[in-house]
Amino acid sequence: MNEKYSIGVDVGGTNTDIGLVNENGVIVARTNFSTAEYSDINLYMDTMADKIKALLAQNNVSEIEGVGIGAPNGNYYTGCIDNAPNLHFGGNLKVKEMLETRLGVPVVLSNDANAAAYGEFVYGGGRGMKEFLMVTVGTGVGSGFVVDGKLVHGHTGAAGELGHSILIPEGRQCTCGRKGCLETYTSARGICQTCAELRDAMPEYNGVLASVPADKLTSQMIGEAAQTGDVLALKTFEQTGRWLGLACANAVTFSSPEAIFLMGGPLKAGDVFLKPLKQSFEEHLLNIYQGTVDIRMSELKANDVAILGAAALLKNK
Amino acid sequence: MNEKYSIGVDVGGTNTDIGLVNENGVIVARTNFSTAEYSDINLYMDTMADKIKALLAQNNVSEIEGVGIGAPNGNYYTGCIDNAPNLHFGGNLKVKEMLETRLGVPVVLSNDANAAAYGEFVYGGGRGMKEFLMVTVGTGVGSGFVVDGKLVHGHTGAAGELGHSILIPEGRQCTCGRKGCLETYTSARGICQTCAELRDAMPEYNGVLASVPADKLTSQMIGEAAQTGDVLALKTFEQTGRWLGLACANAVTFSSPEAIFLMGGPLKAGDVFLKPLKQSFEEHLLNIYQGTVDIRMSELKANDVAILGAAALLKNK
Repeated sequence: MNEKYSIGVDVGGTNTDIGLVNENGVIVARTNFSTAEYSDINLYMDTMADKIKALLAQNNVSEIEGVGIGAPNGNYYTGCIDNAPNLHFGGNLKVKEMLETRLGVPVVLSNDANAAAYGEFVYGGGRGMKEFLMVTVGTGVGSGFVVDGKLVHGHTGAAGELGHSILIPEGRQCTCGRKGCLETYTSARGICQTCAELRDAMPEYNGVLASVPADKLTSQMIGEAAQTGDVLALKTFEQTGRWLGLACANAVTFSSPEAIFLMGGPLKAGDVFLKPLKQSFEEHLLNIYQGTVDIRMSELKANDVAILGAAALLKNK
Repeated sequence: MNEKYSIGVDVGGTNTDIGLVNENGVIVARTNFSTAEYSDINLYMDTMADKIKALLAQNNVSEIEGVGIGAPNGNYYTGCIDNAPNLHFGGNLKVKEMLETRLGVPVVLSNDANAAAYGEFVYGGGRGMKEFLMVTVGTGVGSGFVVDGKLVHGHTGAAGELGHSILIPEGRQCTCGRKGCLETYTSARGICQTCAELRDAMPEYNGVLASVPADKLTSQMIGEAAQTGDVLALKTFEQTGRWLGLACANAVTFSSPEAIFLMGGPLKAGDVFLKPLKQSFEEHLLNIYQGTVDIRMSELKANDVAILGAAALLKNK
């Protein structure tokens, strides 16, 4: 076949997903294997290389542009995954080098949120845009900035950690050791904490979330309750949306993007989350930016974005 | 003469400063005229063009690369000054077009803080750096981001308004109409407000600032008091430094710069301001950035930076 292909790899704490991507950004074939089973990085990389080779052989692809990897704490410059909290392998892992040795093709690495931003740029709603911001909301809150048509890596290769900008000085304790990070308010865990706190202040509340222990709350559960009009769930998303809207307005003062793309599980709650988010965004936006920034959902399928984003990294030259 | 020259223009509310800049970033000749005297933009631009022509003639320069203008609310893309609060001319002023018509050379416009950042990049401490942030502290708080060796203008041309990122939600009232902007805490005016507030909480204080009415306090006065060890002045800079350090740490999560350059009158206070600033910066910096960012003073002379920055804009291609 003469078509140009690339491979996108999404390294997650539980599973590693691999996709064969064509020039049009379509994932034409997939495979995956367990990340969590491995504690030796060399064996893990052996399996990754074998899975990629098998995927190429099955699809009669003899040549690829390269492999893009999106991984927690993946560093674009060094090609290393640095002490990722959700992976069993500790230390600085030279995954770019290890995979290049095994496959003999160019390998590019970045963190997962940056990869998602680049996926949006190359294959999604960011096509044709030169300036935008991607915000991913999930276990953590990540971000990727595209400035002048290029993904911002910064001096260290670790730019775009919006989730660890301090939203409320001396606020909630974050897992990073500091206090008041955006992530503590608008990640899945932050949403659950807000819900529990609001519930404590509403002794009259007797809805579906009334008897769930605080440590058993999930953002999905709260999202489902919100769909049924549950007052506690609605208040939770109202508050979460207001916080994220403020953070997005602050982000605009740095890079003045054309759009902010949002993605992640909690956003499936839909308008109950997005409406207060957009309202807070407009309220907190400096006048010179008003009407210039479009807040919208990622155009990539949740199931595809990590692989497409990783593959897209190969286009960042 | 065969040397290459350019003109830098600093449009201030009171005066307009013009400099002839050589290839090495030396201002070889200067002139200026009153901005405040003019209420008609056409007459103002006539004078600007005449002053530039006279400066060139006096120095036997027949050819220039172009003219760079730094101005409040100057927009790089549109070439307009948009409703600058400190200028007598209202509306959207097409100054780029107006000057190009009058002089027949390329004209580039940007806001003053972005120009300062670019001046640092081309002629100052940012030479050779690809990623840094410039923060200007004065009447307002401005900023300019250099990413991948280019000044960030954003989608609107108005990127880099760090002074209007919200540091403390629902905090101090800002002149922009919103609350809690960084500028309300760390501008010259913010410093005076902090000083007055701290003084109210220190009934025992009887130092040099004790009898100055709150609306007569200046940041310079407080800076001088700090040099003599005045306890109120020291507390004021301690608190101001802590706020600005936090804001700088937040800025790093976006662009991961190699350095943050600081400039502006209040920073002349020196270590009493810089020490708490750096301490707060380190405390509030996400671990992955620790040790990667150098906070330092601008290397350009206060008297030169606006003109050099404006002239430097011509190099941003």
